Amino acid sequence: MSESKLDTLWREISDLTATEAVLGWDQETMMPPKGQAARGNALGTLAGIKHAKMTSAEILESAEACAEMAAEDSVAEAKAREALRQIHRARKIPADLAKALAESTSSGLASWQKARASSDFSLFAQDLETLVRLNQEKASALSPDGPAYDALLDEFEPGATEAVLGPLFDSLRADLSPLIQAVSDSGVVVDESPAQGDFSEKAQAVFGKMVAQKMGYDFEAGRLDLATHPFCTGFSPSDVRITWRYQTDDFRPALFGIMHEAGHGLYEQGLNPAWVGTSIGGAVGLGMHESQSRMWENLIGRSRAFWEWALPEFRAAFPGKSEVTVDQMFPALHTAKASLIRVEADEATYNLHVAARFEIERRLFSGKISVADLPEFWDQTYEDLLGIRADNVSEGVLQDIHWSMGAFGYFPTYTLGNLINAQLFETMGQEIHDLDAQMAQGDFHTIREWLRAKIHTQSSRYSSDQLVEKVTGSPLSADAFLAGIRKVTAEVYGISGNNM
Amino acid sequence: MSESKLDTLWREISDLTATEAVLGWDQETMMPPKGQAARGNALGTLAGIKHAKMTSAEILESAEACAEMAAEDSVAEAKAREALRQIHRARKIPADLAKALAESTSSGLASWQKARASSDFSLFAQDLETLVRLNQEKASALSPDGPAYDALLDEFEPGATEAVLGPLFDSLRADLSPLIQAVSDSGVVVDESPAQGDFSEKAQAVFGKMVAQKMGYDFEAGRLDLATHPFCTGFSPSDVRITWRYQTDDFRPALFGIMHEAGHGLYEQGLNPAWVGTSIGGAVGLGMHESQSRMWENLIGRSRAFWEWALPEFRAAFPGKSEVTVDQMFPALHTAKASLIRVEADEATYNLHVAARFEIERRLFSGKISVADLPEFWDQTYEDLLGIRADNVSEGVLQDIHWSMGAFGYFPTYTLGNLINAQLFETMGQEIHDLDAQMAQGDFHTIREWLRAKIHTQSSRYSSDQLVEKVTGSPLSADAFLAGIRKVTAEVYGISGNNM
Repeated sequence: MSESKLDTLWREISDLTATEAVLGWDQETMMPPKGQAARGNALGTLAGIKHAKMTSAEILESAEACAEMAAEDSVAEAKAREALRQIHRARKIPADLAKALAESTSSGLASWQKARASSDFSLFAQDLETLVRLNQEKASALSPDGPAYDALLDEFEPGATEAVLGPLFDSLRADLSPLIQAVSDSGVVVDESPAQGDFSEKAQAVFGKMVAQKMGYDFEAGRLDLATHPFCTGFSPSDVRITWRYQTDDFRPALFGIMHEAGHGLYEQGLNPAWVGTSIGGAVGLGMHESQSRMWENLIGRSRAFWEWALPEFRAAFPGKSEVTVDQMFPALHTAKASLIRVEADEATYNLHVAARFEIERRLFSGKISVADLPEFWDQTYEDLLGIRADNVSEGVLQDIHWSMGAFGYFPTYTLGNLINAQLFETMGQEIHDLDAQMAQGDFHTIREWLRAKIHTQSSRYSSDQLVEKVTGSPLSADAFLAGIRKVTAEVYGISGNNM
Repeated sequence: MSESKLDTLWREISDLTATEAVLGWDQETMMPPKGQAARGNALGTLAGIKHAKMTSAEILESAEACAEMAAEDSVAEAKAREALRQIHRARKIPADLAKALAESTSSGLASWQKARASSDFSLFAQDLETLVRLNQEKASALSPDGPAYDALLDEFEPGATEAVLGPLFDSLRADLSPLIQAVSDSGVVVDESPAQGDFSEKAQAVFGKMVAQKMGYDFEAGRLDLATHPFCTGFSPSDVRITWRYQTDDFRPALFGIMHEAGHGLYEQGLNPAWVGTSIGGAVGLGMHESQSRMWENLIGRSRAFWEWALPEFRAAFPGKSEVTVDQMFPALHTAKASLIRVEADEATYNLHVAARFEIERRLFSGKISVADLPEFWDQTYEDLLGIRADNVSEGVLQDIHWSMGAFGYFPTYTLGNLINAQLFETMGQEIHDLDAQMAQGDFHTIREWLRAKIHTQSSRYSSDQLVEKVTGSPLSADAFLAGIRKVTAEVYGISGNNM
């Protein structure tokens, strides 16, 4: 009874969230440039209404009643837990602030796009200052005594803190830096030409779509559109949309971008239909989400087995590539070299990009640096961590969309996703014995159903930490990820694990 | 003070209306098929929230206070008038019914699309029955003692009634039937070949877009997309979207469809920026809206002067048409013959299509016929009015989208639009002396600015009737429309006005 009352009230919140997502998708893919101000108003109004619903006495009472009456470890208990977490969070944020945050992101997105297009940080600086200030206000409303950055991290990955993530990034740096150094010392230069050449937009779209379909992404419940920034957004499991972008001289950004987003898309399409619209209806967190996208992109899409199947299709799709072999392609998919753009970084260096953002954000929100310091501090951090500097702000501090949308504390979920991904894939390999043989046949059915049963249909029934441990039998660690990256790098660069 | 209070409250309603419009546009242009059920839920939730806002004691009090304090004939008075009209209307409709109506349209749209694609009325019948029943309930909530159809008509054209429209359609039939008969008796068959041939989608898109741009439709504040049904929807004056469809064997549906929708679009883009988001921020009514679209489509787009300018562009755009002259093209744009599809009907017969729908709807809502009778009654009415019958339901009772969206009483606004359109254009011709010369130069600036000043920027400051009289100096009549159609038909078919 109290569970169904909570479900009824939550459905409105869920419908409002879906509505915001439609407006957001449209804003990034379809909206004409002049539509921005009105869109900001509409999003602000929706945020205000959602905030009022989320902070009503009625929903709090129904969640508390549900918590009281729920049997231990029941679905009802999970619904109450997740509802109360979000309700208590919302009740700490003043309505005006919730609305101002929503409105500011629309303007921030527009000025970031302009600034990035003309490589001029000053065009974005004012909006960014507003976004940082509003997020500072939000953080101090959420956690008046704790560190501001923790309050922000918690939004994207419940329970994540600077105190836990700091040592994690330190240890990843300690392991990855010698690896990158050993690669550099090896003198080996990977031949990337199998991935380079002349790839038409059309052929890349057809090929990418075919692969997404093979993965099981349902185009009757989804779309693939061009956008400046690849992303996935779900309005319900039956309407999940992904975007892509491409280069005509290199197929990797498009294909692996599509596989990445389709990995997110499979998670959203696979959420438990019975719980849609309830407080546990969504994905469990961004780290888990990223584990799904990165598994398809990296552990499947860059595997030898995958290319056993994909190569003939690839050869047929792209003229001039009819002679490429798997042995030639494999190294081109596993370089380990410092680069400027996070979304195109290889597996070995990717977490260093995230570490850089973690360093920058923690300092920004502890007041050690200001918005004006960002361009220079960004370049300095890249030099420290990756040994390279961007030539311009478009490839530096302006490369990511996240801050323009007011998302601070989001990046670390990418690294959590990498770690979860590797640990899940290890377990999957133990449970599906002929995994490689299936991939080499282009048969991804068993993989997808394994993920669907173990992860997707769990929705938010358990916390992310609980789910990882439930599925893999161990708490999350970096071991599987590091073992994997060492192995593949050793193979591609001909260096032994001992040298690292 | 009371005006600004009302404005503040109304802005939320306006933002919700814009949000519903985004979801509606997406549903018809972008949404994957499986997304329908969730979209229906979201639209239902939004309708419920909007209804609650519109029926709150707070907004009623602020509108009443505004009405009391407003000076006679002031903007504040207009805002109060329009707010109170909508508030009182909403307060008569129970919240559950408002939500059910919104939810049912999404399902109706989907089943109508299926039924139409397979020409099978039975696939739509059940949803249509629900839609009719809910609209009967709505009508009796709005007007417990009056005729149901009047209550529905009033939603699209405030003040319109069956008692006024009945005689109007009777008199149009009385004037148009002899005209069509005289055309038939003349034995003249218009050569339509200048409009027929081979027109690629791409060339039609480029040409149509060029014409829309010439008209002044701002693509920085709009889009043009393909859709099953051409329509225009505005989220704000700076985000107004139009759709089109095409035939490859006849350029008329695409070009005149685009000019029609761009005419609507110019109205939406030209609404008074100072009043956006207030109760008088929108267009004044559907009749006035349709006057804008049909003026560009028919009185401008099918004029000799327009083709003086457009023909060289047309010849260059379409291979095989490089020899066509204005004298050859003109008759092909002014046929007067019975046809099955309303949106492709010529000016002379168009109002008979509307008269047919008026007959059918008035009987449906007075209980004289049922949903099951519709296919046969539709065909019978077409035979009575136009002398032809559809071969299948896709070209008959299923041709229009309106009922699937729960819009009953909408069609008569098309005829009102035709009449307003002709009367406005007559006045415009008196005030702009070299109108034809400007069109023949492809210069539509003066026309657009005249419409902007006289109509668009008036938003809902006055009622539609008031505005027509204010701009043209006379109350609305059918005179200008009938004079125009008689003149052009006489010219094309070589018959004198006295024979009609």
